[in-house]
Amino acid sequence: MRNLTLLTDLYQLTMGQGYFNEGRHEQLAAFDVFFRPNKLITYSVAAGMEQVLDYLENLHFSEEDLAYLRSLGIFSEEFLAYLADLRFTGRVTAVREGEIVFPYEPILTVTAPMIQAQLVETAILTFVNHQTLIATKAAKIVDAAGGGVMEFGLRRAQGADAGIYGARAAMIGGCVGTSNVYAGKLFNVPVSGTMAHSWVMNFPTELEAFRAYARSFPDGCLLLVDTYDTLRSGVPHAIEVFKELRAAGHEPKGIRLDSGDLAYLSKEARKMLDAAGFPNAVICASGDLDEYSVASLKEQGAKIDSWGIGTKLITSADLPALGGVYKLAAVFENGKEIPKIKLSDTTEKITNPGMKEVYRLYDRATDKAIADYIVRADEVVDEGGPLEIFHPVDTWKRMTVTNFRARRLRSVIMENGKRTSDMVPLSEIAAYFREEKGRFWEEYTRRDLPHIYKVDLSPALHALKTEMVKKKGTL
Amino acid sequence: MRNLTLLTDLYQLTMGQGYFNEGRHEQLAAFDVFFRPNKLITYSVAAGMEQVLDYLENLHFSEEDLAYLRSLGIFSEEFLAYLADLRFTGRVTAVREGEIVFPYEPILTVTAPMIQAQLVETAILTFVNHQTLIATKAAKIVDAAGGGVMEFGLRRAQGADAGIYGARAAMIGGCVGTSNVYAGKLFNVPVSGTMAHSWVMNFPTELEAFRAYARSFPDGCLLLVDTYDTLRSGVPHAIEVFKELRAAGHEPKGIRLDSGDLAYLSKEARKMLDAAGFPNAVICASGDLDEYSVASLKEQGAKIDSWGIGTKLITSADLPALGGVYKLAAVFENGKEIPKIKLSDTTEKITNPGMKEVYRLYDRATDKAIADYIVRADEVVDEGGPLEIFHPVDTWKRMTVTNFRARRLRSVIMENGKRTSDMVPLSEIAAYFREEKGRFWEEYTRRDLPHIYKVDLSPALHALKTEMVKKKGTL
Repeated sequence: MRNLTLLTDLYQLTMGQGYFNEGRHEQLAAFDVFFRPNKLITYSVAAGMEQVLDYLENLHFSEEDLAYLRSLGIFSEEFLAYLADLRFTGRVTAVREGEIVFPYEPILTVTAPMIQAQLVETAILTFVNHQTLIATKAAKIVDAAGGGVMEFGLRRAQGADAGIYGARAAMIGGCVGTSNVYAGKLFNVPVSGTMAHSWVMNFPTELEAFRAYARSFPDGCLLLVDTYDTLRSGVPHAIEVFKELRAAGHEPKGIRLDSGDLAYLSKEARKMLDAAGFPNAVICASGDLDEYSVASLKEQGAKIDSWGIGTKLITSADLPALGGVYKLAAVFENGKEIPKIKLSDTTEKITNPGMKEVYRLYDRATDKAIADYIVRADEVVDEGGPLEIFHPVDTWKRMTVTNFRARRLRSVIMENGKRTSDMVPLSEIAAYFREEKGRFWEEYTRRDLPHIYKVDLSPALHALKTEMVKKKGTL
Repeated sequence: MRNLTLLTDLYQLTMGQGYFNEGRHEQLAAFDVFFRPNKLITYSVAAGMEQVLDYLENLHFSEEDLAYLRSLGIFSEEFLAYLADLRFTGRVTAVREGEIVFPYEPILTVTAPMIQAQLVETAILTFVNHQTLIATKAAKIVDAAGGGVMEFGLRRAQGADAGIYGARAAMIGGCVGTSNVYAGKLFNVPVSGTMAHSWVMNFPTELEAFRAYARSFPDGCLLLVDTYDTLRSGVPHAIEVFKELRAAGHEPKGIRLDSGDLAYLSKEARKMLDAAGFPNAVICASGDLDEYSVASLKEQGAKIDSWGIGTKLITSADLPALGGVYKLAAVFENGKEIPKIKLSDTTEKITNPGMKEVYRLYDRATDKAIADYIVRADEVVDEGGPLEIFHPVDTWKRMTVTNFRARRLRSVIMENGKRTSDMVPLSEIAAYFREEKGRFWEEYTRRDLPHIYKVDLSPALHALKTEMVKKKGTL
């Protein structure tokens, strides 16, 4: 495992030395990770916590790291000696991976000595921002396709990790496989892929190329048919080879289209395959697709069974960063919580102070989610109801919920620097997301102009926030 | 070093087994990496070759990798045994990092046994696409700022590698430092950063926070002044602390603005700093900036000396993938080159066949670049001239160049699987880019509506291409 302890912004270390010199470095502090709203995402799929745990468990400065820091000429020997023994000893409270989350919700909270909590900010944001971004993009694409989406983007990923952890996140968001062999091995997920145009170009004719491939992979043979002319050459040659395979006792898998008008070509190819006796041969499409083009193809009645999505998934091309932040929520003095708030001229940018929990309220009649409810950490949500909830900014927007159950979204996933439970298999995370998504009305999760899901504050939290904002002048 | 041998698409391995079974796996083949044009990039800054060399030198399947591949149930024992001994034994010809490159130019060519050349396609594209993308984005931002740009994007990077290698690429594109400590250590580049809002929020008052920081970092003290109120609180408090520092014999560095109207705030802060006797205190600005907002701020006369650029640089937000491709250029039979071409209904998508070299023609009078000239590998470009060059598609666009020098852009950087020279220091790469950029008229490199730089084909290459396109029907 790579030692990523230096994967941090320099200011975490300069502030660290500052806190150290001021004797404030071991003051317990709590920081929340949350996202602000953006115009492209209606809900997000939380991911990256597993990588956070790995990173935190392995946090330590090597001799080489310390020598490098010393070489910068800005750190004292006392501070470097302190860093040499530093490990992460704090607590992490977080939603599970695959949880559907909304803006302003503290999806992860680090409670640790100040110096540790600051040091780990950058890497935690990197991991959670990235994987949540890609899991969310994947969910949108899978939603449009209705399933059968494979992640094919490694060559366009922003470096190796973007490909590897992007593939992982894509699986959480509902992809059924990846072309990325490294990710396949690391996360035990299905890998797929058969041939590129170069294979076809390498043989004297397309037919010879297909036959050669079929010789090596007689079972589940999938042929790329658009190298020369999809309908006049590719599909007829594929059918010819499929017939030869069947005569030899093998059933072919299907074809892949990678260019041209995928709606038209898939419909024509479908007819040709059906007429030739291959109604079960699948048609896979790829080529610069995203949720919009997939939805458009579906709308046009394209006969596409599975989708290979590359660039626009692995980079989340229309929103390549989620912009999650890590904000101080509280410090502790003699075990007593002192809530902290970040003010701003923009109401939406004022943080929710103090230690918090997030509950999701479900209608007992339909088992559908009604609203999320952010409370002070020590509050108890009485499932008896009725509970009046209100919009945190437009407080006149009120609703009374009854006959609901309340589920706490977060749990302690690390205590005293050790993870509290085993790694969850990726398939289980993906299944959890799918299941939880079923508990949301489609009005909330649709791609275009969704109904905004309510994320409200409890009266106690709202009162604390209001009171702290009023005191603004005294800060 | 991580073993990234499995960082490939599955189809490279299925094709590999196919070639192996057909006895074609060791046929020598050449693949070119090149970019297609896109609406946002006028020129690109080549980068990522160093990572390619590292990867290729370390290419080998571990026992664990082979066990994983065996577990997929699609590879034969004979093929897996072959993979166990596989190393990269080929040649890599490429432009140097920091070279200015244009669409269609083969910036890197792999000449290797087919199975190797295919296996390495994905990772090579990942590294070169990513680093070239970020180096190019950085160059555009640095161009707008006129210098003083620091890379601050790690927390919004698409995973750890995107942050680490993105910081490296940003330095090639002209950034003067990064906040990323890991990248600082790995590539020996300047790191910078002082404090976050959380530091200021952690002290009872802003003034106490500034004083505490100044105690730890009396020299080169840089204070973040926008936590509460930039002009009424932040800058006055900073000035107060700067005066105390100076009285104690220390000269402060300056202030950082991270929100609000940066044009207005920087101008006012500049006046206040100047009036207080700190004309040399720098003003650093950050906060969701890119080349457009930087140019706009400069246009408004903002008094900003240095820039911290995060999200939009590290993700290349308006173009998060470069879309570089890797196309078969030739195969060799008994040492004889057999050029290969990929056809397409779109003229621009037809590849340039065969082994090629790229020359840059410079006007001897001005030492400015005139055009790039792609030739068959064995052609000699006669610097005597006159040389008539023509547009590869609109062939009526012709120009005769005289009194020029011609520089070959590519060289062999790996032979028989070994790098041919030592790693070039990053500072040297960055200096090279800066120098070469000086040899381009600004008309070619400006951000908006640039004049299109000519990339022409030699008559011999054009004739080969035309002839191969005509033969299309026989493929």
